[in-house]
Amino acid sequence: MTATADRSEREVAGDTPALIPTPTGADTITTEGAPEQTDTQGTDAPGTTASATPTGPIPVVPEGGARLDVAAVSQALKGRWAESRDVARERAARPELHKPYDVSVAEHRARVLEQMHLLVADDASHKMLPEHLGGPNDNGGNVAAFEELVVADPSLQIKAGVQWGLFTAAIIQLGNEEQHRTWVPDAMSLQIPGAFAMTEIGHGSDVQSLATTATYDEGTQEWVIHTPFRAAWKDYLGNAALHARAATVFARLITQGVDHGVHCFYVPVRDEEGKLLPGISSEDDGPKGGLNGIDNGRLAFDQVRIPRTNLLNRYGDVAEDGTYTSPIESPGRRFFTMLGTLVQGRVSLDGAANRASQLALHIAITYATQRRQFTAADPTREMVLLDYQSHLQRLMPKLAATYAGAFAHEQLLQAFDDVFSGRGDTPEAREDLETMAAALKPTSTRLALDTVQECREACGGAGFMAENQLVGLHQDLDVYATFEGDNTVLLQLVAKRLLSDYTSELKNIDRAGIGRFIAQRAEVLAKRHTPWTRLAQDLSDRGNSKRAFDTMRSAGFQEEMLADRARVKVEEVALSMRPAARMSPTDAAAHVNKHQVEMLDAARAHAELVLWRAFTAGIEALEDEDSRTVLTDVRDLFGLDRINADLAWFLLNGQISAQRGRQITSDLRRLLWRLRPHALDLVAAFDVRPGHVRAPIALGGEQERQDEAAAYHRAQRASSDTPVSEKVLRDRAQKDKRAQKK
Amino acid sequence: MTATADRSEREVAGDTPALIPTPTGADTITTEGAPEQTDTQGTDAPGTTASATPTGPIPVVPEGGARLDVAAVSQALKGRWAESRDVARERAARPELHKPYDVSVAEHRARVLEQMHLLVADDASHKMLPEHLGGPNDNGGNVAAFEELVVADPSLQIKAGVQWGLFTAAIIQLGNEEQHRTWVPDAMSLQIPGAFAMTEIGHGSDVQSLATTATYDEGTQEWVIHTPFRAAWKDYLGNAALHARAATVFARLITQGVDHGVHCFYVPVRDEEGKLLPGISSEDDGPKGGLNGIDNGRLAFDQVRIPRTNLLNRYGDVAEDGTYTSPIESPGRRFFTMLGTLVQGRVSLDGAANRASQLALHIAITYATQRRQFTAADPTREMVLLDYQSHLQRLMPKLAATYAGAFAHEQLLQAFDDVFSGRGDTPEAREDLETMAAALKPTSTRLALDTVQECREACGGAGFMAENQLVGLHQDLDVYATFEGDNTVLLQLVAKRLLSDYTSELKNIDRAGIGRFIAQRAEVLAKRHTPWTRLAQDLSDRGNSKRAFDTMRSAGFQEEMLADRARVKVEEVALSMRPAARMSPTDAAAHVNKHQVEMLDAARAHAELVLWRAFTAGIEALEDEDSRTVLTDVRDLFGLDRINADLAWFLLNGQISAQRGRQITSDLRRLLWRLRPHALDLVAAFDVRPGHVRAPIALGGEQERQDEAAAYHRAQRASSDTPVSEKVLRDRAQKDKRAQKK
Repeated sequence: MTATADRSEREVAGDTPALIPTPTGADTITTEGAPEQTDTQGTDAPGTTASATPTGPIPVVPEGGARLDVAAVSQALKGRWAESRDVARERAARPELHKPYDVSVAEHRARVLEQMHLLVADDASHKMLPEHLGGPNDNGGNVAAFEELVVADPSLQIKAGVQWGLFTAAIIQLGNEEQHRTWVPDAMSLQIPGAFAMTEIGHGSDVQSLATTATYDEGTQEWVIHTPFRAAWKDYLGNAALHARAATVFARLITQGVDHGVHCFYVPVRDEEGKLLPGISSEDDGPKGGLNGIDNGRLAFDQVRIPRTNLLNRYGDVAEDGTYTSPIESPGRRFFTMLGTLVQGRVSLDGAANRASQLALHIAITYATQRRQFTAADPTREMVLLDYQSHLQRLMPKLAATYAGAFAHEQLLQAFDDVFSGRGDTPEAREDLETMAAALKPTSTRLALDTVQECREACGGAGFMAENQLVGLHQDLDVYATFEGDNTVLLQLVAKRLLSDYTSELKNIDRAGIGRFIAQRAEVLAKRHTPWTRLAQDLSDRGNSKRAFDTMRSAGFQEEMLADRARVKVEEVALSMRPAARMSPTDAAAHVNKHQVEMLDAARAHAELVLWRAFTAGIEALEDEDSRTVLTDVRDLFGLDRINADLAWFLLNGQISAQRGRQITSDLRRLLWRLRPHALDLVAAFDVRPGHVRAPIALGGEQERQDEAAAYHRAQRASSDTPVSEKVLRDRAQKDKRAQKK
Repeated sequence: MTATADRSEREVAGDTPALIPTPTGADTITTEGAPEQTDTQGTDAPGTTASATPTGPIPVVPEGGARLDVAAVSQALKGRWAESRDVARERAARPELHKPYDVSVAEHRARVLEQMHLLVADDASHKMLPEHLGGPNDNGGNVAAFEELVVADPSLQIKAGVQWGLFTAAIIQLGNEEQHRTWVPDAMSLQIPGAFAMTEIGHGSDVQSLATTATYDEGTQEWVIHTPFRAAWKDYLGNAALHARAATVFARLITQGVDHGVHCFYVPVRDEEGKLLPGISSEDDGPKGGLNGIDNGRLAFDQVRIPRTNLLNRYGDVAEDGTYTSPIESPGRRFFTMLGTLVQGRVSLDGAANRASQLALHIAITYATQRRQFTAADPTREMVLLDYQSHLQRLMPKLAATYAGAFAHEQLLQAFDDVFSGRGDTPEAREDLETMAAALKPTSTRLALDTVQECREACGGAGFMAENQLVGLHQDLDVYATFEGDNTVLLQLVAKRLLSDYTSELKNIDRAGIGRFIAQRAEVLAKRHTPWTRLAQDLSDRGNSKRAFDTMRSAGFQEEMLADRARVKVEEVALSMRPAARMSPTDAAAHVNKHQVEMLDAARAHAELVLWRAFTAGIEALEDEDSRTVLTDVRDLFGLDRINADLAWFLLNGQISAQRGRQITSDLRRLLWRLRPHALDLVAAFDVRPGHVRAPIALGGEQERQDEAAAYHRAQRASSDTPVSEKVLRDRAQKDKRAQKK
């Protein structure tokens, strides 16, 4: 493995001096809107930047320019549960909780199990407990803390999630108080490690089709849990391969010959010595792409009998005689109410994914301000990576999206806390919470994977070394995109909710409303068929790219664009689905399937609007004006980047004029340079601490090497017996020859 | 780890029956252009599909429709060195060469070293030897075979590449015949494992700035190899941590006080017992993101002395008295000539990345034709994943790009063989070869990473299991994007070559040529400023989307679009760089840096044109008309997908009319359905064999489970004591109530 060289800048430049100048940058950037000097940022950056607020020399901000108040922004990003996060961040910095390198799957699993006991010793999950179990019922604070574990070891975060966020939470959310008192204490203390046995090999996201059965036997007043075929084995369950002594098993409840759909049962699976109980089978999922600190595995049940009272019976119960009752009449509603209690998994993945992006950006941007490569203008000084336009282009839009993601996550977490604390627990609030989680979890997990990968590549060979954390982060985060609700399935869910809202709206509008609707449609079509213009845009922009830049950076413009897009895309899908109403179910399904990609696209447009609005609201809530100014540039970068990514759509729908369309990329680049001096501040506000950052390339190692090399070259230049370059000699000789001719 | 359920299709559909039908598809797809029945493809697929040509039931192709000749297309993909590939594919299927799971870094390294000896026993690299060393000088055949190892274990492919493709090849390409006879036999036999010591910690892609020195000592007639500071340590070198006994070290040649730039030296580093020789230091890079079967490490030299004759002196030599001579006068040209001999690394990575994409697509598409999930229209039969529009959209464009990549790689390999065999070794041919390699290696390695990741996610939880190969493939392929020339640096190289060609063209044109140039520019600007139209497109398309579809599928249209784009993008960059010619070097560098992203974009546009043309030429060379028909659809999918990805540019530059712009996405989706019945054939032509595929999900495991579950459900439906669903009972009761009311 090695990098080989390239026909260098100088060489090609030498070939065509007239038109093509030396095509690398220089230390001093003189781009419009950029600071006169940015190189001191790289040169004088402190040896380690892994502190909350940089204490060393800082990026040069243009005179009179705004400067980010790192502490204030950091506090805003931490949100309502800042205190909980602070404690958790201290915890996540402890070496004994960190991910090991080059250990076997067995060793990693054993280590994470030990770490789980350290969390118990810390009483780390106490906040989740409701009052009658002696806890504060602080769901927001609990999830906030739990997310922070991702920077210690994602395996620990997810194993803790399995034990307390899924297994224990299922008992709390779906069981009665008697059941809580019986099982929750041992689950909290890890006396009983548990598996959350929902997913089957044959059914992941389609839980309604699970095939495991729980049949009530009136004679013995027991449930008989049974796995009817191979595809019905429970699979991918954390704790199932080794550690679980019990499981919350999702199975079809059957009593008196009626199948009441999927319910949850508490089923012991191993004895105190860890031996499988009679009728229980288990298999190990073996090594995975990441998260190898978790013993994922399979479970199957061969006519396993458990007491009647092991049904977690909050939403459905069976009397001794086998009579089924439920507080929720509709089987469908009942099922989704039961599943709805599990939304916290998605909420916490959203937060953890966001935190992982922050760690990756901290590493890559720190390195990019110290690492130097290539030079042209100044032969004695190479340029730091972040001063290359392409490097800014790789990292800064991801930084902007990560800011948007953090503010949006805080809104999601507050919505979650409102519902789960009971303060705002209405069916509508639950549905909104689920839709928001379904929109944000796919967005943030996708962003995290893309960001971590971009960061890893932006660090070159160093990024591939395990010690620099980025590859491991990608490996562990990988499955965040497909578990706890596959991203595609979740986005489809969002799209359906949007369509359903749209059609209810249509149904409910009065006569005047219909007029408004028709007028709106007409407006959409008019925009689309007015070639090439939104006349107003062109008139206002005429001959003035500065003015257009200002307009596009206005919150009003961006919001209008993103909101119109979200609305029109839903409307288009709804309209294109109308014919299906008159078709046979089979034809209708095929027709709908022909619009599935558009549906997903509409859901993504909606998610981006949610992010943009959350970011904007987050900025408005800041008191420090300077910080607002800097973050508004970041928000603009996010907004314009998202518009630019879908620019063809905006052009084709007449939402954006050709003139603005042509200008948007240059405006984006202008924003990159405006933000360049703030890059380290923006990363510092993430509050990624020493202990979270363990990558040597982001802990001063690179800077130290650069300084040593620079000192060597300085000494060389000062010395008289330094070898002269053949090229210099040749150039000198040619010059002499030319001089003689004249 | 578990997937939780979602507000299902049925539920939401139930809310809004009028406008939104049940939003899943059905077994029978009735899309225009699609076959009436596609479900038999999934249902009846043979237990294992990992054979070159499927022998079981096959996808249903519309009556009279063309059918891919799998054997013929497979042969075409194997190209000129089909025989060499066949032997190598047999080899890659041998279990003893396969990647192990869950082993320590040390164990994996030991295993790969053993595998290397198996390759020696096979004489697997014999083809690379020139005639005077007893070989056939079959460089194309050698590289073709070597690429195929990627499906056994990428670590083996790359370790073999280090030993023979870099270390041994450096001796052959840069040394004289005496040196060949001295060192090559032991390198070939692995008596002397070697490192290729080019990259330094401080300098990866910028080889010209390497800091290691080789200073000639006339007194002893020795070279003194020295590492002046920490950043000059050689790093990331395969074999350096443990196995290397010698290294080809790149260092600045200094003699008689003159620095002649980077040359290559043969330096012993360890003795027969593996102990480091005096003055040599080594460090282990430790665990990496992938490729852990290779012992990457660092090397440093403390005044290490080697004989004068250890300079590999083909392009530069030093006499006993220290006088430097070279057959190439310009130091720049000399340097790039030396490096040019190493292009084979990039060529082979291009081929290996392509092969990895093929393996990933084989696994994901096989699984997608067997795996079923969700149903709406038919309650007893779920739909196979590949019948979902979004699933086709995820996988088929990547399949199309992989086809393009395979045909382009074959052209690259032939160009490489022409140059390296000496048959077509001109400076122009070398430069073209290097440019093509610099364009294709970033494209194919990026495609491979994206394809493998998409395939892994498309397989859900199963995709995350190590045994299903996809995660490991991503981990190993990850670094392909940054080694052997970082992808960004290579694309910049391509852009510079394109700019340089463009400006030479301008310089060389005569008066008439200038007229043509001005006319061309005028045309570009006219297109751009003619709002919204290419009049001809709109006239010819008017009211006829079928005709527009046919036009866009014409090779002429696609080539015009892709070629115009490649040309105009280069032209735009060249024009925007003009002002730099009158600037100071510093300002010029900053100005150029402001256009770096555009340069990279122009290079990508060029690469896509190269791929499209290679694909088209590959189809034209096929004799079987049916295969040409099917592959033309695949080519159209590739071409239109690439145009669509940059649609805003085409619209803004007036290259594509709004009408066509709006139609292109629906045309793309039409192509997806047209290709759906050919999916398994298209994958079969990749000739991914049993032994290459080791993923249980692609070896019939999923189909077996589906069949067993289907049999169970059939039996249930036939039985009288099967539980009735509560929902069915409720629906029935409500119906009865309604009937009574009437």
